[in-house]
Amino acid sequence: MTPSPQLATPALEELERRFRAGDKSALARLITLIENQDPRVGQCMERLYPSARRGHVVGITGPPGAGKSTLINQLIQTMRGGDQRVAVLAIDPSSPFSGGALLGDRVRMTDHYRDEGVFIRSLATRGAPGGLSLATREVVRLLQSFNFDRILIETAGVGQTELAIMDVAETTVVVMVPESGDAIQVMKAGLLEIADIFVVNKADREGAARLRTELLAEAALGPARPWQPPVLLTQANHGLGLEPLLEEIDRHRDFLRHATSCDFNERCAEEFSAAVRATSTRHVTQLLAGARARGLLDQVRVGRLNPYAAARLLLQAVANEESPNDWHA
Amino acid sequence: MTPSPQLATPALEELERRFRAGDKSALARLITLIENQDPRVGQCMERLYPSARRGHVVGITGPPGAGKSTLINQLIQTMRGGDQRVAVLAIDPSSPFSGGALLGDRVRMTDHYRDEGVFIRSLATRGAPGGLSLATREVVRLLQSFNFDRILIETAGVGQTELAIMDVAETTVVVMVPESGDAIQVMKAGLLEIADIFVVNKADREGAARLRTELLAEAALGPARPWQPPVLLTQANHGLGLEPLLEEIDRHRDFLRHATSCDFNERCAEEFSAAVRATSTRHVTQLLAGARARGLLDQVRVGRLNPYAAARLLLQAVANEESPNDWHA
Repeated sequence: MTPSPQLATPALEELERRFRAGDKSALARLITLIENQDPRVGQCMERLYPSARRGHVVGITGPPGAGKSTLINQLIQTMRGGDQRVAVLAIDPSSPFSGGALLGDRVRMTDHYRDEGVFIRSLATRGAPGGLSLATREVVRLLQSFNFDRILIETAGVGQTELAIMDVAETTVVVMVPESGDAIQVMKAGLLEIADIFVVNKADREGAARLRTELLAEAALGPARPWQPPVLLTQANHGLGLEPLLEEIDRHRDFLRHATSCDFNERCAEEFSAAVRATSTRHVTQLLAGARARGLLDQVRVGRLNPYAAARLLLQAVANEESPNDWHA
Repeated sequence: MTPSPQLATPALEELERRFRAGDKSALARLITLIENQDPRVGQCMERLYPSARRGHVVGITGPPGAGKSTLINQLIQTMRGGDQRVAVLAIDPSSPFSGGALLGDRVRMTDHYRDEGVFIRSLATRGAPGGLSLATREVVRLLQSFNFDRILIETAGVGQTELAIMDVAETTVVVMVPESGDAIQVMKAGLLEIADIFVVNKADREGAARLRTELLAEAALGPARPWQPPVLLTQANHGLGLEPLLEEIDRHRDFLRHATSCDFNERCAEEFSAAVRATSTRHVTQLLAGARARGLLDQVRVGRLNPYAAARLLLQAVANEESPNDWHA
């Protein structure tokens, strides 16, 4: 599980300078550094961390086949109509945004790719458990620092990692289609708890009204919340229902502005924890690629050490030798 | 994101002594330490790491509603008929094994819970991204060390975390039902790649034969593999098809015995990486719960530090002060 070899990147300062000047290719290179768990990312994040005003982070999730990508495609268009700068981060490996469309419903993204106000990127990491949600958070902060007004994150929201990724979103839109399921399955997947807005897409199909009723009933069952998730009907492939969706997204953002300081404190703690964990994870990845780790692994292979004894020896050795500047450097 | 307070546990040596003497309550306490990311787990894993002979680790995964829990219930019975000691680790939070059945299909587990040769446990972690798959690996090693012949891991196999957990399994059984989906959705979820055995459960329903044909066709499409996943039909709720399933599970285990040394080397590297990452993650969790972290977080809250500056200061301070024995201690 060695990490990718470090890319031959320009000096970090040069990349950051170009990033600040609005160069999208520098942004893309920095995202690649994050994907590769490059140990220099920490210092880079420290310098580029977004200040007060930040773009709105909207998560779009739901089962495969719900039409998330088509919906996002239309949302981009609607937002661009309002002259907002939009970034899309696709985490779903089967998304057409990630180049992984399997069902032939590939969205025509060409126009968006040419649009200066739009940035589309897929994200993948490997090796470190938990690395994907940590990386997502960092990329979102970079995109905010780059002054996008909206950052859309697309996941197939069906597992633990996907739910963790949605923690990064301020507003979470859960997309379903009439046949994708009864409300109980939704509840099981944990989507009910995270949804700020429900979308029933492909609403011209049978069962859309019933699903809407069920979702409203389920949402009403839970504890009273200051924000009750609305359920919207869309037909993204016909461009229908996008304006009302954007209005609800805005309404939720305005709602968040009045969130309590308790929420703010919790967000700060999450952000700090994530920064510490991400920095530490990169450090460990680098360690595991080093000569000392290789030597210890050889001893595990021949049965002279068990993996936990080897782990202790590796981490002790590092704690012993490390100069404080090795963190982030 | 502070971790749970450390449980008032007996001294670790005492727990380990009871574990070695076959005391299931000691096993259960050690699993709780792993769930809580207790920093003492590292030394404990080092001492209790299983030696050569190990129980067979079988992953059981598939979409919610596929009948995994009923199938596992029957598998336990079949394996107990052969006098094998069986442990079940339920990662799926909606599993009846985790106490989370929502659909009313709660399995009667009472008899198994009374059986000395059976151990059933659910597993949950919080806080550290990636913590769940690392914890699963450690609990599996403990269960092997406790001399279970079979360790069954149940997940709802639909996300990145769930797929990562299946890495720990030696033999992965993917369970589906006729209505749960066409083969393309399976492929998208990444299940096709990880399946060693397919089970079409509730095979008395319409479409079972067609799904079986599709799965065989999909499996045949991929690159030629030394092991071609069989597709079995079961009706777990009627106890049908379990013996053939157990035969295929055994056949796959025998197949693995002849795996190349290349596989062995890769498994060693994974195990070593996981041990290093898990140990480091526990260390970071402890750090984040400490006084220095609280002080730095306060500075983040008032805007005097950004999260990455605070993370660097925390990790630098530790690298500076740490005595090597702090790892694992």
